[in-house]
Amino acid sequence: MAETYRIGVLGASGYTGADLVRLAIAHPAMEITVLTANSHAGHPMAEVFPHFAFVDLPDLATVEDADWSSVDVAVCGLPHGTAQAITKAVLDSHPQIKFVDMSADFRFRDPAVYAATYGKPHQAPELQGEAVYGLTEHYRDAIRDARLVACPGCYPTAALLALLPITAAGLINATDIVIDAKSGVSGAGRAAKQATLFSEVGEGLSPYAVGTHRHAPEIEQEISKVASRPVTINFTPHLIPMSRGELCTAYLKLAGGATVDDVRATLAAAYRDERFVHVAPEGVLPKTQNVRGSNYCQIGVFADRVPGRVIVIAVIDNLVKGSAGQAVQNFNLMVGLDEATGLMQQPLFP
Amino acid sequence: MAETYRIGVLGASGYTGADLVRLAIAHPAMEITVLTANSHAGHPMAEVFPHFAFVDLPDLATVEDADWSSVDVAVCGLPHGTAQAITKAVLDSHPQIKFVDMSADFRFRDPAVYAATYGKPHQAPELQGEAVYGLTEHYRDAIRDARLVACPGCYPTAALLALLPITAAGLINATDIVIDAKSGVSGAGRAAKQATLFSEVGEGLSPYAVGTHRHAPEIEQEISKVASRPVTINFTPHLIPMSRGELCTAYLKLAGGATVDDVRATLAAAYRDERFVHVAPEGVLPKTQNVRGSNYCQIGVFADRVPGRVIVIAVIDNLVKGSAGQAVQNFNLMVGLDEATGLMQQPLFP
Amino acid sequence: MAETYRIGVLGASGYTGADLVRLAIAHPAMEITVLTANSHAGHPMAEVFPHFAFVDLPDLATVEDADWSSVDVAVCGLPHGTAQAITKAVLDSHPQIKFVDMSADFRFRDPAVYAATYGKPHQAPELQGEAVYGLTEHYRDAIRDARLVACPGCYPTAALLALLPITAAGLINATDIVIDAKSGVSGAGRAAKQATLFSEVGEGLSPYAVGTHRHAPEIEQEISKVASRPVTINFTPHLIPMSRGELCTAYLKLAGGATVDDVRATLAAAYRDERFVHVAPEGVLPKTQNVRGSNYCQIGVFADRVPGRVIVIAVIDNLVKGSAGQAVQNFNLMVGLDEATGLMQQPLFP
Amino acid sequence: MAETYRIGVLGASGYTGADLVRLAIAHPAMEITVLTANSHAGHPMAEVFPHFAFVDLPDLATVEDADWSSVDVAVCGLPHGTAQAITKAVLDSHPQIKFVDMSADFRFRDPAVYAATYGKPHQAPELQGEAVYGLTEHYRDAIRDARLVACPGCYPTAALLALLPITAAGLINATDIVIDAKSGVSGAGRAAKQATLFSEVGEGLSPYAVGTHRHAPEIEQEISKVASRPVTINFTPHLIPMSRGELCTAYLKLAGGATVDDVRATLAAAYRDERFVHVAPEGVLPKTQNVRGSNYCQIGVFADRVPGRVIVIAVIDNLVKGSAGQAVQNFNLMVGLDEATGLMQQPLFP
Repeated sequence: MAETYRIGVLGASGYTGADLVRLAIAHPAMEITVLTANSHAGHPMAEVFPHFAFVDLPDLATVEDADWSSVDVAVCGLPHGTAQAITKAVLDSHPQIKFVDMSADFRFRDPAVYAATYGKPHQAPELQGEAVYGLTEHYRDAIRDARLVACPGCYPTAALLALLPITAAGLINATDIVIDAKSGVSGAGRAAKQATLFSEVGEGLSPYAVGTHRHAPEIEQEISKVASRPVTINFTPHLIPMSRGELCTAYLKLAGGATVDDVRATLAAAYRDERFVHVAPEGVLPKTQNVRGSNYCQIGVFADRVPGRVIVIAVIDNLVKGSAGQAVQNFNLMVGLDEATGLMQQPLFP
Repeated sequence: MAETYRIGVLGASGYTGADLVRLAIAHPAMEITVLTANSHAGHPMAEVFPHFAFVDLPDLATVEDADWSSVDVAVCGLPHGTAQAITKAVLDSHPQIKFVDMSADFRFRDPAVYAATYGKPHQAPELQGEAVYGLTEHYRDAIRDARLVACPGCYPTAALLALLPITAAGLINATDIVIDAKSGVSGAGRAAKQATLFSEVGEGLSPYAVGTHRHAPEIEQEISKVASRPVTINFTPHLIPMSRGELCTAYLKLAGGATVDDVRATLAAAYRDERFVHVAPEGVLPKTQNVRGSNYCQIGVFADRVPGRVIVIAVIDNLVKGSAGQAVQNFNLMVGLDEATGLMQQPLFP
Repeated sequence: MAETYRIGVLGASGYTGADLVRLAIAHPAMEITVLTANSHAGHPMAEVFPHFAFVDLPDLATVEDADWSSVDVAVCGLPHGTAQAITKAVLDSHPQIKFVDMSADFRFRDPAVYAATYGKPHQAPELQGEAVYGLTEHYRDAIRDARLVACPGCYPTAALLALLPITAAGLINATDIVIDAKSGVSGAGRAAKQATLFSEVGEGLSPYAVGTHRHAPEIEQEISKVASRPVTINFTPHLIPMSRGELCTAYLKLAGGATVDDVRATLAAAYRDERFVHVAPEGVLPKTQNVRGSNYCQIGVFADRVPGRVIVIAVIDNLVKGSAGQAVQNFNLMVGLDEATGLMQQPLFP
Repeated sequence: MAETYRIGVLGASGYTGADLVRLAIAHPAMEITVLTANSHAGHPMAEVFPHFAFVDLPDLATVEDADWSSVDVAVCGLPHGTAQAITKAVLDSHPQIKFVDMSADFRFRDPAVYAATYGKPHQAPELQGEAVYGLTEHYRDAIRDARLVACPGCYPTAALLALLPITAAGLINATDIVIDAKSGVSGAGRAAKQATLFSEVGEGLSPYAVGTHRHAPEIEQEISKVASRPVTINFTPHLIPMSRGELCTAYLKLAGGATVDDVRATLAAAYRDERFVHVAPEGVLPKTQNVRGSNYCQIGVFADRVPGRVIVIAVIDNLVKGSAGQAVQNFNLMVGLDEATGLMQQPLFP
């Protein structure tokens, strides 16, 4: 590998930032030069994440104090709402930087949808216009040419990988999509909250944000695009007593005489050459255990008891393919590397 | 409490049997006289379940060696398929015994559905004809008069409590029901299986029996009855890394102009006087943590993003309201006690 | 049960307070009249702990606004350091109230030890002089007569039940005690802390407060008393990825020719008539699963490979026998009830 | 990397075998040519471990049918007791093969100790004489020249890394060692056992094999060697509700005037140049979370409250540094590669 890219990670004190660091350490063409975390500026990364005690990393810095001239590519793990202004500031002052955003800030093509979903106007609409939606397998060419890539949310990644090819092929009724989603607790972030204490979520299960989760409009944006009409979907997330992993069970109506086998065959064909998206053979059940710690997505297709319906199930690791892994995959494309560079870690099981 | 009933527990080495024992110890009118577990006959219960080391219990016996003349009411926690012949043998020789079956053997009114679902003909069809379906809140009068009660499966308990009143009221389209179900691992029983080892299911999540779970026909039997026509439903279970607890998320289409508020109001009215079934106020999310170790069922009703749809969520403890607790509730009715006797334990949280 | 005692729970928004409420609901002679939680005053208990949605409870109040004239017995689940002043205020204004404190504030007979351990002078030393250490099995007579009982810490409860009889009998060397302790996460309380988030402690294990835990001086106080000389002990706690449960493994040197069997026999004799403390037969391993949700303590005695040494292992539920259950046990004694009233719930397994 | 070594994994259907496969896939100089699992012969690896569905691997074969001529190095993950005869058969027929054994079969230099510990005579004592104990950091030179390396048990790995340097330096009293050990459930293997079902070990904690665990004599063998006299140690393992990870807390007496700082400094010096063994700075607590999925060992040294004592804590991932990772580390030495080749994966947190 001839070239090395200098990486700055914004928001390195969160789980997605940390997983990006984990992947960057293993990446043959990434060198971490900047780590920001405003509340821990001046401290070693190993104080914040002690599992990094065994590697050399730059100390944490504020966004303002970081030396952005030492950065070729920035990856942003800041909380939603805070990324857009900082992205703009960094890109304005250092326009040569390529930017991979893992937050939600640049995912909506329509700033009005952003404002409606996140409750405030977008602070960098001109960058929004430039941003490419980073669902790698479906936006590969645009990502290659992008300066700013907005990685999808974890749920949208799993749901859209499962639904886009069959919606585009007209095999399912796009206006009758039910997505029951389940996620590990790391998706809720590392901020101290009573609701995600071990004793609160251990040995238990709960739905949350029923009918109101912000990933629903994001899924709708992409489904609507391939369906060529605006669609509203059901999306209902549940919190599972595990740290990593995400599973979407999609309940769908077959359209135009399509069969369950058509659905499986279409997905298999769509992802035949993909290294990270795999369609399971008939009868094989996707499990989050199959993809833990890896960049894989596994999709299974099942006949429903109800005639004319099909069930499609997708699993990912929410922090990898659902965030940091997909960010690295997009980085690879943006700088011209093989897309799988540094990402072929096998799942950690058990 | 004037009278005490002598209880025999068949299959006391399984989780539902053990939870029945736990509840019976706390019950003011139950005295355990017989515990069977053929593979552990002759051994103390505390050898098989060491958490019973602190109470006096009869030693385990074989079904054949147990003294059934010392039993007023038998509660059966045997595995599916084995209960029917043993029930018949016990009732033939001791017809005075009342019988509460927690297995699946007497749940299907139509022996042909049993045969189709469980893959072999029913071995006691005459008892099947006599058996009352033990969903207490919906079959209370029949249970009072029954000699043999077939307690519902854990999933059907949660699903039917949520769906029966609104299906009967015509508020939802009975032919378009999707039930995404999630259960703790204890539902898979105590037999040694690789698939339910800690290292296999911990930190992970998987669907199972997609499109083929045996609780689907049971739910269909009851939904069809109140809908007055045969219906097929979607029912898709998932295995959650927790021991106890069950949550059903039902995705439904509103019918005949009904609203989400109608659904909530109808459920609230149906269960207004119930001590174990509670409809949550608008905005309150059911969680399995809210019912752990208790006989409660909590139901929540939510607007879907998709117009014309509603989401109904029900939680129970699969071993209590989903099995042993409901069995005690039915026992109370069968012997003329207050239905809640011995069952008012509050949930154990955290 | 002729009489009912009106109970006020201070600090009802914490885990020990909530478990006291759970036990009080089941207690035939307790009626909850006051629940305090200053930060949630005016709100229903079910908002703070949704598992109480199914019972009637008073709304939460501030300590100041609570009607203490409606209280016969107060049970205090306030954080360490805040209990003493509030206890004093309540007792000064309502001297008829009996007080059971679950905090650490009145556990040290010597205010200097309190000050050294908790880093500030005691604010109610005169009450400290009156307080009885509430390790029920070892202070039963004094508890019966007490107005103020200081329940032991969870770790001291398990450790002292295991060690006091054999130290008193001179069977072990009191100056060579090593206690390796393990606790579930609920012991860290319900305040939002990053360190006890699910994703931080799940699938992992760590020691904490090595050499510095505040329960060590408490154990030393009691061991020193029965050893009739000041002793320092090793006490090293570890955080286990479970919510409830506590296990102390004590590594001990046999003294004066004592044998492992002597140790077991002495413990068995000491607790022969106890309903909550049980010494396991030789070869039976204590597990926290055996006591989950119950007021039991189980103790096992094992030969070490190293000659002249013995291993004693004790398990409790940290929130029950380690806190709220022992508080109820002490309440029963203080008001003249049978000590086990309302406490015979069997363990919840699985 | 010029050369590739063809790897055969014996016992690929167990957890250590699977983790070896995971590491081998990532290893730039390993090519897996043989996978054996007699009970699954003829089946794809992905049927047995579905997380390997995304890579190409040889089908499983019986030991007898495997083509050992295609193997340069065999790594054995067979259960204890079965490895020795098979190792002998393979080496007799293919003496060119280098052999890394992860079982317990060749760990005891003295076959009499093996026989006493495992209850039957050793079946390949001549190979035992040749085997090198594979604690890499302490037997590096011998491993380089070995044909047969016996990787230490998981507990001995953690315990010995912590204890050997300070015992050799005379800083602790070798006859007064107490090791309280805690392990995740994967250490119990993948065979279906009731005792390791999720519902049995979840939300709970138990000791096991108290005073009798087979890793104690292994630890004693090595401690005795550096202490230059036979020592007996305390070793008490506990089962923790997590899949991976292991923590040993060693309670030690300082000898010859040594201080806690001496202990830390000696360990730090011993491992200064090691890439996988790290001594934490004063005050930093080792956690299994810090090493999950990695080949690291982290060691912390703490002052005890009891004067003259010290606490040393070591954590590893039981399947990596405690088994498959150390096997790869030894493989690297045996074939002349850099010792860390393919092993620098960072811990997976959360």
